[in-house]
Amino acid sequence: MPATASSYSITMRLHTLPDHGIVGQVATTLAKAGGIVTAIDVAESNHERLVVDVTCSAVDETHSKALVQVVDGLAGVEVHKVSDRTFLIHLGGKIEVASKVPLKTRDDLSMAYTPGVGRVSMAIAENPEDVRRLTIKGNSVAVVTDGSAVLGLGNIGPGAAMPVMEGKAALFKRFANIDAWPICLASQDVDEIVRAVEMIAPGFGGINLEDIAAPRCFEIEARLRESLDIPVFHDDQHGTAIVVLAALTNALRCVHKNLADVRIVVAGGGAAGSAITSLLVAGGAVDIAVWDREGLLSRDDDTLPEAKASLAARTNPNLRRGTLRDGLVGADVFIGVSGPGVLDPEWIKEMAADPIVFALANPDPEVDPAEAAKYAAVVASGRSDYPNQINNVLAFPGVFRGLLDAKAQHVTDEMLLRAADAIAHVVTDEELHPSFIIPSVFHADVAKRVAAAISGRPLP
Amino acid sequence: MPATASSYSITMRLHTLPDHGIVGQVATTLAKAGGIVTAIDVAESNHERLVVDVTCSAVDETHSKALVQVVDGLAGVEVHKVSDRTFLIHLGGKIEVASKVPLKTRDDLSMAYTPGVGRVSMAIAENPEDVRRLTIKGNSVAVVTDGSAVLGLGNIGPGAAMPVMEGKAALFKRFANIDAWPICLASQDVDEIVRAVEMIAPGFGGINLEDIAAPRCFEIEARLRESLDIPVFHDDQHGTAIVVLAALTNALRCVHKNLADVRIVVAGGGAAGSAITSLLVAGGAVDIAVWDREGLLSRDDDTLPEAKASLAARTNPNLRRGTLRDGLVGADVFIGVSGPGVLDPEWIKEMAADPIVFALANPDPEVDPAEAAKYAAVVASGRSDYPNQINNVLAFPGVFRGLLDAKAQHVTDEMLLRAADAIAHVVTDEELHPSFIIPSVFHADVAKRVAAAISGRPLP
Repeated sequence: MPATASSYSITMRLHTLPDHGIVGQVATTLAKAGGIVTAIDVAESNHERLVVDVTCSAVDETHSKALVQVVDGLAGVEVHKVSDRTFLIHLGGKIEVASKVPLKTRDDLSMAYTPGVGRVSMAIAENPEDVRRLTIKGNSVAVVTDGSAVLGLGNIGPGAAMPVMEGKAALFKRFANIDAWPICLASQDVDEIVRAVEMIAPGFGGINLEDIAAPRCFEIEARLRESLDIPVFHDDQHGTAIVVLAALTNALRCVHKNLADVRIVVAGGGAAGSAITSLLVAGGAVDIAVWDREGLLSRDDDTLPEAKASLAARTNPNLRRGTLRDGLVGADVFIGVSGPGVLDPEWIKEMAADPIVFALANPDPEVDPAEAAKYAAVVASGRSDYPNQINNVLAFPGVFRGLLDAKAQHVTDEMLLRAADAIAHVVTDEELHPSFIIPSVFHADVAKRVAAAISGRPLP
Repeated sequence: MPATASSYSITMRLHTLPDHGIVGQVATTLAKAGGIVTAIDVAESNHERLVVDVTCSAVDETHSKALVQVVDGLAGVEVHKVSDRTFLIHLGGKIEVASKVPLKTRDDLSMAYTPGVGRVSMAIAENPEDVRRLTIKGNSVAVVTDGSAVLGLGNIGPGAAMPVMEGKAALFKRFANIDAWPICLASQDVDEIVRAVEMIAPGFGGINLEDIAAPRCFEIEARLRESLDIPVFHDDQHGTAIVVLAALTNALRCVHKNLADVRIVVAGGGAAGSAITSLLVAGGAVDIAVWDREGLLSRDDDTLPEAKASLAARTNPNLRRGTLRDGLVGADVFIGVSGPGVLDPEWIKEMAADPIVFALANPDPEVDPAEAAKYAAVVASGRSDYPNQINNVLAFPGVFRGLLDAKAQHVTDEMLLRAADAIAHVVTDEELHPSFIIPSVFHADVAKRVAAAISGRPLP
């Protein structure tokens, strides 16, 4: 049975006979059915019944329903209500706006709002750069999506994307004290998206594009970078690329190879694959080939669609063609940002010595990390239940903290490379290990070091 | 000398000779120059010098500079630094985003963000109405402006409008626990504004349009009300109209007249004047004439521009023409939302018995309220230093609270009328007085009663 995940944690309110032994039976029954009981509270106890709240982790939705059934099937036990803890914490949204100024007296109002605010507005009208100093713009980021490629869920639209963008905003606050607001757009037209973001830009210090489908995301980002004077960062591309480069830097430290010398195969030429490839090249990688549904992308293949042809033009110097397996023979590094199960673990045996495998497809990786670990020297994935989780939370909070601190107008490749290097070197030589190539997202230094790397300012 | 306002409150840091008598001299000197000293703190005291922080209110910027000069001119006193308290509270912005969920452990992340958030997104994709329940949409409002008519400052643009919109967001939180975010748009084109607001709408439960110039604001509001399934409310129009009707209801209670019977002249046919007129008509007023630069607006004048002609078509049943003074002869009520000084106080003598004068132009009213009070039975203004301040803060927080509570898709005139009635009746018969026709913005019941009036729900 796979590990239980707290994202499938439920709380059942039970009405039982007034027999305290029955609580033990519930716990035993749940454990037998594979549930992990994390809390039991008797909420009410009298001569007629007990009211008991049992909190329990399950593997998935089906499992959680099965757990409810086995408990409900116990003699003397009735499941009165089931609360899903994940849904409970999302109720009413995960973020809120707070006022930083007192608004208790008429004097407070006169300074924070009319008439006092008029002088502050005039000061900005006279000196537009002051908007970063005198408003939230200096610390705020718009988390913008069109809902077209949300997590692994696909094109679910702007409303359904809201919980993800809010979660992102909460992470921005938690990890970098940035005030981010979700902007979920009701259009998937490139021109309309570009124009809407341009129009809302005056109030924000940065734009974090999120979960916008490829190849649309490339044009949107490129056009916004051209027209706006605040940094634009597509996290699915550049956040992922930074963390992958950081992890690869450390994986190569483990196996004593250099980025410039290794042969790399990237599976998946979408938003993430394309950005990873570009950043690895900027970081000094020479021999990278991208594999996608068309096979290995090579510039001598004139049937490739535009975005793929552009990728091919910048990669694969030896013009390799063929299947993923063909590409992997003798390769040092596999980086997967494609789909579940595309990598047969047996193929890893055909790679060069001490192969590195990053299987990053979510929620189901290109290869089971445990299987891959039988043949690979270093394995990383996007999953939290294996070592070496490649998680964008390591990058984007610090990246935007640094951009805002520097009042940056643009993001450069040099910044991204420095950010990756900063993340990699949070792991000391002593700590470095094939199962510890990347720091925990809760490591207190990560965002600070990334911010300093981006802004060029000394560490606080 | 006019009253000092805390929006011109400064703090001077003084370096003085180590003579404690000198602090008294500073205070006396400031008082003589018309400053009001609100705090004196000796920050440092040694054998060589004192460091003293003196906080002091001034009438305006010129006055505050004069105060600094007189203090700096004292023997043994050097003004080291001057801080403007209003600017200090705006530094870094007045609002922030807070996370409502714990993000301390990996389990927390798994529930608030991936993978747990995916189930919440899927639930919304399957049942779109759940977005109000499972995200911030159910409690959030976009405060949207194009920066074209900000306070009395005019077309200062979206960046300079930010302090005002942030202040509004802070008030939304303070008075109605609503999460509002400023959206300052970099375009003053009607089509672009409409489309941008339509596009950002999925994440918000309501749209508060703010400080958009007339007549553009009318078309923007009308089109958005047509296309969106969340309420759209232009506060400069409808917020003002609600509070004016509330105040007029009570002013008429004071002089024992009925709305249906009185003759009303509205000075100013812009956004506010137009909305006030419409709401008064909806509330039962019959004889209203609007005066603007074209004179009294009458439907038999075919030279009027479109918006004014539309106003004229709905008002002035007796087809009065002429100057403001002509219109006021025999009228019961003057409502000014125009410009400073357009009303000569002497003209009030020519109005009907017990005339009511609302001089609401900001920051300088149509007539000095103190002068108007010599002839009028009831006087109100937009100023906080006279009784009866007509302040939109009485309306918009409760209006949106009610709209969000009711999951309303539209705003109706009936709602606005009920809101005005609710505000008026916060003032009890015992409290009612020509100098107390409107409750304080800090009255704890106002927003709750307005919300209940809008939503139709019982008071909490």
